[in-house]
Amino acid sequence: MNVNIDFDKLEVGFDVPAVPGMNEKDIQTPALVLDLDALERNIKKMGDYAKSRGMRHRVHGKMHKSVDVAKLQERLGGAVGVCCQKVSEAEVFARGGIKDVLVSNQVRDPNKIDRLAQMPKYGGRVIVCVDDIDNVPQLSKAAQKHCTEIHCFVEIDCGAGRCGVSTSSDVVKIAKAIDEAAGLKFTGLQAYQGAMQHIDEYEARKAKIDIAIAQVSEAVDALRKVGLEPELVSGGGTGSYYFESNSGVFNELQCGSYAFMDADYGRILDKDGNRIDQGEWENAFFIFTQVMSHTKPDKAIVDAGLKAQSVDSGLPVIYGRSDIEYIKCSDEHGVVADPDGVLKVGDKLRLVPGHCDPTANVHDWYVGTRNGKVETVWPVSARGKAY
Amino acid sequence: MNVNIDFDKLEVGFDVPAVPGMNEKDIQTPALVLDLDALERNIKKMGDYAKSRGMRHRVHGKMHKSVDVAKLQERLGGAVGVCCQKVSEAEVFARGGIKDVLVSNQVRDPNKIDRLAQMPKYGGRVIVCVDDIDNVPQLSKAAQKHCTEIHCFVEIDCGAGRCGVSTSSDVVKIAKAIDEAAGLKFTGLQAYQGAMQHIDEYEARKAKIDIAIAQVSEAVDALRKVGLEPELVSGGGTGSYYFESNSGVFNELQCGSYAFMDADYGRILDKDGNRIDQGEWENAFFIFTQVMSHTKPDKAIVDAGLKAQSVDSGLPVIYGRSDIEYIKCSDEHGVVADPDGVLKVGDKLRLVPGHCDPTANVHDWYVGTRNGKVETVWPVSARGKAY
Repeated sequence: MNVNIDFDKLEVGFDVPAVPGMNEKDIQTPALVLDLDALERNIKKMGDYAKSRGMRHRVHGKMHKSVDVAKLQERLGGAVGVCCQKVSEAEVFARGGIKDVLVSNQVRDPNKIDRLAQMPKYGGRVIVCVDDIDNVPQLSKAAQKHCTEIHCFVEIDCGAGRCGVSTSSDVVKIAKAIDEAAGLKFTGLQAYQGAMQHIDEYEARKAKIDIAIAQVSEAVDALRKVGLEPELVSGGGTGSYYFESNSGVFNELQCGSYAFMDADYGRILDKDGNRIDQGEWENAFFIFTQVMSHTKPDKAIVDAGLKAQSVDSGLPVIYGRSDIEYIKCSDEHGVVADPDGVLKVGDKLRLVPGHCDPTANVHDWYVGTRNGKVETVWPVSARGKAY
Repeated sequence: MNVNIDFDKLEVGFDVPAVPGMNEKDIQTPALVLDLDALERNIKKMGDYAKSRGMRHRVHGKMHKSVDVAKLQERLGGAVGVCCQKVSEAEVFARGGIKDVLVSNQVRDPNKIDRLAQMPKYGGRVIVCVDDIDNVPQLSKAAQKHCTEIHCFVEIDCGAGRCGVSTSSDVVKIAKAIDEAAGLKFTGLQAYQGAMQHIDEYEARKAKIDIAIAQVSEAVDALRKVGLEPELVSGGGTGSYYFESNSGVFNELQCGSYAFMDADYGRILDKDGNRIDQGEWENAFFIFTQVMSHTKPDKAIVDAGLKAQSVDSGLPVIYGRSDIEYIKCSDEHGVVADPDGVLKVGDKLRLVPGHCDPTANVHDWYVGTRNGKVETVWPVSARGKAY
């Protein structure tokens, strides 16, 4: 089926790059393209792995910010819910029908605490992370005001050096305060080692996680001693989920990037020394871009620059091509080295962006393709929800 | 006036960080804040300068992507219209009432050419850049189909190494083709030296622009010889506008960043060796952020990370503070070195982002403040319009 779009009839602000049924080559660039077959295989594979280890998988929704992808992860990957980083983002997932939403972050602003306390009204469980005992009465007061219950994880800093407490005695102190506070429930521990996920070597990642596991294990023991056995011990990402799964301490994973992959994650190595995007996971997430100028014989200019991606983790890689290379990124342009002059104006390319999370966050739509056709156009539901 | 927001009554997708009348300190973070006094002074100053040199000022709308800011630039700065980089972006400005819109870029995709050709129906002039003679019949055909006229600039690559032709003979060849094509009008030259805008030293920038001016001057002479005097010769940015204004060749400026400023532009020096954000222009554009965790005595964690800004041109600078420093940026967190432990959870800070253009592009709203109060909340009208 060929679909003609009359873009002039679309309202301002509702500017879609594609419609279902369209040929992939007609997608307006730059656009985010999801290879639905690869996405589904990634989701199913991680789901099967988690199930085989008896792990809950709370998928990281901050990566894709999409209710549609989260629901696919529930359906095909047995996901138990999502985690995300901000209250406004969590609202989108809760309103979208996700029944177990963790804000894997601190919420300290009074307005945001008030919004968080109202979220259980959408019908699911709401969990938030706490790393400061002063946060406990703030959360308790808001939950009581709205007659809701907020579940709380105590966050352990297990090496990322960011949020979270560092000692078991601090964990116990905060857990006790939560347990005693009206409107709150102590549910578990947040222990995500974010800083190590992108370390290339498997053994180097393992060493970091071993330290984290020992730290979390000690905290769990200390909690047991005071009768506060955590229901959930949650953490793990695409670069470490096998360590947490085999730890005997964690019972919940929080993987995100495995579903999409990106150039930076692609460079990390599995235990056999192979890149994880060459076997373990497939690239399912692309920026579709077009050559729009080629006045120099050895350089093509494409239409995906900084407004179509984040380059914090490096430049994008051109998928499936070794003859050309994306070498420079400015606001709206990418410079592609084309030493043999193989590209022509109008050619379309798939870029694997350096970092999937902040790249998804600049786009309004995911265009899902299969067999060369557009099958779905999904909103990036929580795009810009940074509050 | 104090305003209470009932966030629960707001619809999903319409999540504003502030409302007019609110105290600045209550703005939900992270949010883009415009200091309206500083913004207005910057706009007026550049407008007065352009007027004093007899230059048209076509403000660069791709920087702010805001119809409201563009209209302020018309009203206070005498702007003659906007330039921007994409057709979807240009549509927003044209539909928003801007009467002279230049797409300072090539448009090659058939769908986009069709949209471009319809834009004059909104009642203004539409100009596009051409750097390939094959583009001329494509544009001509679309203009004829829609019974409109597309004005065309020939783009000269005057050192940026991106789009544009490099020789006067190519300029003349394309200008002639445009002049002879039905539905098109040859209107002038695009000659923006983007690569030099961020060179720190004034004399080094001048040397680059002198080359560009000589190149453009030669092209203008060549065009005159064939009876194709360009109506407009357009270029110049915040790091070079005084060179183009005094060139005797350019008659139109395309400055953008002067209105907002950012950390990267702030570091370039004027002819007296002073940073341009310390006298020439004022910082009017900030990310308002809040401390949301402080479990280590010497480090505060703020809520503005990669989802609230682009770090392609470096990390943000904390405005007006030398005692603390933003040292690390992850997806949703910023790590602030706080050696003396002066920050507390809940404290709000103003960040000057590294690069204003792609930072504006991740936000939905500008919160305009004056005298500690929120005065306006403007949409980032063309956010995400990258097609």
